[in-house]
Amino acid sequence: MTSIDLNADLGEGFGHWRLTDDEQLLSVVTSANVACGFHAGDAPTMRRVCELAAARGVRIGAQVSYRDLAGFGRRSMDVPPAELTAEVAYQIGALQVFARAAGSRVAYVKPHGALYNRAVRDEEQARAVVDGVVLADPTLPVLGLPGSRLLELAGKAGLPAVEEAFADRAYTDEGTLVPRGEEGALVTDPGAVLARSVDLARRGEVVARSGRRIGMRARSLCLHGDTPGAVDLARRVRDALETSGVRVEAFA
Amino acid sequence: MTSIDLNADLGEGFGHWRLTDDEQLLSVVTSANVACGFHAGDAPTMRRVCELAAARGVRIGAQVSYRDLAGFGRRSMDVPPAELTAEVAYQIGALQVFARAAGSRVAYVKPHGALYNRAVRDEEQARAVVDGVVLADPTLPVLGLPGSRLLELAGKAGLPAVEEAFADRAYTDEGTLVPRGEEGALVTDPGAVLARSVDLARRGEVVARSGRRIGMRARSLCLHGDTPGAVDLARRVRDALETSGVRVEAFA
Amino acid sequence: MTSIDLNADLGEGFGHWRLTDDEQLLSVVTSANVACGFHAGDAPTMRRVCELAAARGVRIGAQVSYRDLAGFGRRSMDVPPAELTAEVAYQIGALQVFARAAGSRVAYVKPHGALYNRAVRDEEQARAVVDGVVLADPTLPVLGLPGSRLLELAGKAGLPAVEEAFADRAYTDEGTLVPRGEEGALVTDPGAVLARSVDLARRGEVVARSGRRIGMRARSLCLHGDTPGAVDLARRVRDALETSGVRVEAFA
Amino acid sequence: MTSIDLNADLGEGFGHWRLTDDEQLLSVVTSANVACGFHAGDAPTMRRVCELAAARGVRIGAQVSYRDLAGFGRRSMDVPPAELTAEVAYQIGALQVFARAAGSRVAYVKPHGALYNRAVRDEEQARAVVDGVVLADPTLPVLGLPGSRLLELAGKAGLPAVEEAFADRAYTDEGTLVPRGEEGALVTDPGAVLARSVDLARRGEVVARSGRRIGMRARSLCLHGDTPGAVDLARRVRDALETSGVRVEAFA
Repeated sequence: MTSIDLNADLGEGFGHWRLTDDEQLLSVVTSANVACGFHAGDAPTMRRVCELAAARGVRIGAQVSYRDLAGFGRRSMDVPPAELTAEVAYQIGALQVFARAAGSRVAYVKPHGALYNRAVRDEEQARAVVDGVVLADPTLPVLGLPGSRLLELAGKAGLPAVEEAFADRAYTDEGTLVPRGEEGALVTDPGAVLARSVDLARRGEVVARSGRRIGMRARSLCLHGDTPGAVDLARRVRDALETSGVRVEAFA
Repeated sequence: MTSIDLNADLGEGFGHWRLTDDEQLLSVVTSANVACGFHAGDAPTMRRVCELAAARGVRIGAQVSYRDLAGFGRRSMDVPPAELTAEVAYQIGALQVFARAAGSRVAYVKPHGALYNRAVRDEEQARAVVDGVVLADPTLPVLGLPGSRLLELAGKAGLPAVEEAFADRAYTDEGTLVPRGEEGALVTDPGAVLARSVDLARRGEVVARSGRRIGMRARSLCLHGDTPGAVDLARRVRDALETSGVRVEAFA
Repeated sequence: MTSIDLNADLGEGFGHWRLTDDEQLLSVVTSANVACGFHAGDAPTMRRVCELAAARGVRIGAQVSYRDLAGFGRRSMDVPPAELTAEVAYQIGALQVFARAAGSRVAYVKPHGALYNRAVRDEEQARAVVDGVVLADPTLPVLGLPGSRLLELAGKAGLPAVEEAFADRAYTDEGTLVPRGEEGALVTDPGAVLARSVDLARRGEVVARSGRRIGMRARSLCLHGDTPGAVDLARRVRDALETSGVRVEAFA
Repeated sequence: MTSIDLNADLGEGFGHWRLTDDEQLLSVVTSANVACGFHAGDAPTMRRVCELAAARGVRIGAQVSYRDLAGFGRRSMDVPPAELTAEVAYQIGALQVFARAAGSRVAYVKPHGALYNRAVRDEEQARAVVDGVVLADPTLPVLGLPGSRLLELAGKAGLPAVEEAFADRAYTDEGTLVPRGEEGALVTDPGAVLARSVDLARRGEVVARSGRRIGMRARSLCLHGDTPGAVDLARRVRDALETSGVRVEAFA
């Protein structure tokens, strides 16, 4: 029987501001990418999300970011590697306290936003992220894009590399994501998202923008939690997967 | 043979700014209160100070603060207890990563600046700090002022309470610190600071501002690291203690 | 014919986070308290709100705050007066750029959150705020609570002092606000809010919590913009005022 | 008689941290690039520097930066143009308050650090900076590198473009700066710095790294204020210029 992990970004408010419906999303996903305070995620929210995740048996991951509250971590930054390494480790450490206090642990790391995108091709920054993970815990899996420098370097450093796919993003024939600005970059039809989710989980395939079926092996599907109707769509994706015989569970 | 711990604040720069001469101070003190990013202390500096401290066998403590870079943590803030607890735990967790990576560990907690002062009498905030320490590690000693709410509540929570004294601050007959604004609050004569250090360590006594000798039992002396000549004075204090037969070592 | 000003807090998001429905509120209020970046309010939002306000003929005010994004400016802080004065002036200056560029101007100042509350009784901070306003523009009116130190000192400094009232807050017989924590502090029944708004505007009176009618002269009513249904209630308040013969317009 | 402006970065501390010797530098330079809070420069410091500059007749400029206290504005950031424009205007506005209150005015704008470097070639960001200046004050001169996109677009937007040169930086034969990382990028010999300053001011020439003399017309020389001995060297540069018959005065 095939299984797949579902991950989503959680705890992405800050202070008085809220963004993600953490409670609802935690009833759907199997892995929670918890914001660690650099792009979002104040300390009380981190604590609460860890408690909720632990209570529901959802795995906790550190969603590390550039230090950029004003830009929500979406602006690429030329952070020197030694700084980036230390900042990644700092964020993981801060989250570890709350995960442990909740009776759980930080079980993986996923970069956020601009750092995620940059670590796809930028070797220096990808290596800095990997170094930060190793500094914090040399057994932590790293979640990222198939073929990314990040996963390649994570693997070389002895960190488990976990590939993820996006059911609501268009792919090129080469298996890379169509950039957000381009036409058709986002798959907005819910039915299509459900079908693509099942395809990805069951066959390790996805229909590229060109119409060709391409291989896309991923152990986790990323669900978006900050759009209108996000929770409902996430729930339907999970239902569709389970109905089609896919076991939804945290990656091994 | 009597022994005493020497503690000082370290790593109190931020980004491009430096404040404390960390390398020199680490050759004198036995306990390093490392800034954790809320009033000072960027991640690369935290990492470096932990590495230097571990290499010299200096004990690492988390110097936790209000979130206030602009005010260097010196402005009292009405932070609700649940927020304060989470923020204290967050800072300890972040530092734990660097201490562990350096082959050491966070071995105690000391609040900084306005939080330190407020936790002397403010029961709610003192309790919030203690709760944050317990959340992070329920075995961590707390360093503070004799008679403070902080140490009282730490003790009740099962945390070792470690009392500290200041050789360069004037005391009232009741054993409280003369507020900084008042005349004679600071002991600026180096010879007096040395003599008071030895008195505190050997006899558990200090001469109050009134001229009376009062009892002042402390397991640690706090040295100031951010004033001109601070490193030199710290070294002379350590020499005076050792010459007078006091063993300078981290508190048990 | 009686007239009254309606003010509300606007632009209280930050970066990726939104809080207030600025466009809708700007179709109701006559004075916009624009967040200036210290508790909320990033620069692009400040610009946009100024443009929208100018286009609708809504007056622009600087909603100045403690520097506290994590606490949304709701945590009282012991900021030394000279710092507070400069920080208030800084915020006003930043907003002036956007107000001017939109063809309007910053026409008044209103402290936010904890600073507003503290300036009611804390003479030192109230004076520091007034000094900051004078530094930025010695002709700017200050909006605040009747009987507050802030308005008293503003008046002494030659700044027009503009009193505001709250239709949705309970008052004591002495005309002070019932603290938020206490029972009955908030008036939640929409009908009551409408009736109290009209009473305040037409008669300069309000029914205190005790049931007694008390005098409460105010040139502006503060509407809350960040609660569910806030825009709808604000619109109904404005309608009720106009229906009862009150002209809704910015204070003179 | 030839004249030249001398500019330096000032007010580059933050809160408890100091970096530049503002008082001393203000006795040497004719134009002060005042940090505006985004990479450095708290509000009280901005106020103080403006007061000192006004008292000495030194011209005040807004040294605008990316929002990056942790990186001192030295990390290039992909800030979307609309955000960058608003952030530049915000900083100028904040400084205008203090300049005006001191009886002076913000008389020019100079980008700091990574933003300065990026605006040399990045058309989008250069334009965003120019738009921000125009938003704040469409008459403000922009100080920058000869041949930069920034100055080109400033000129097209009707802003006076003022070229500056560096006596302590090596130049290529094409008149661009040798990147800091490369050998010989910095001219460290004080005598050479003095001679180059005079050459730049009197002849509009500089000896490139290759040994060739190249033309380098600049109306301002940038002095560095944050290195050991900076003030002394700055004073000697000014003396050398005046001794050689150059009038040191703010650019027209």
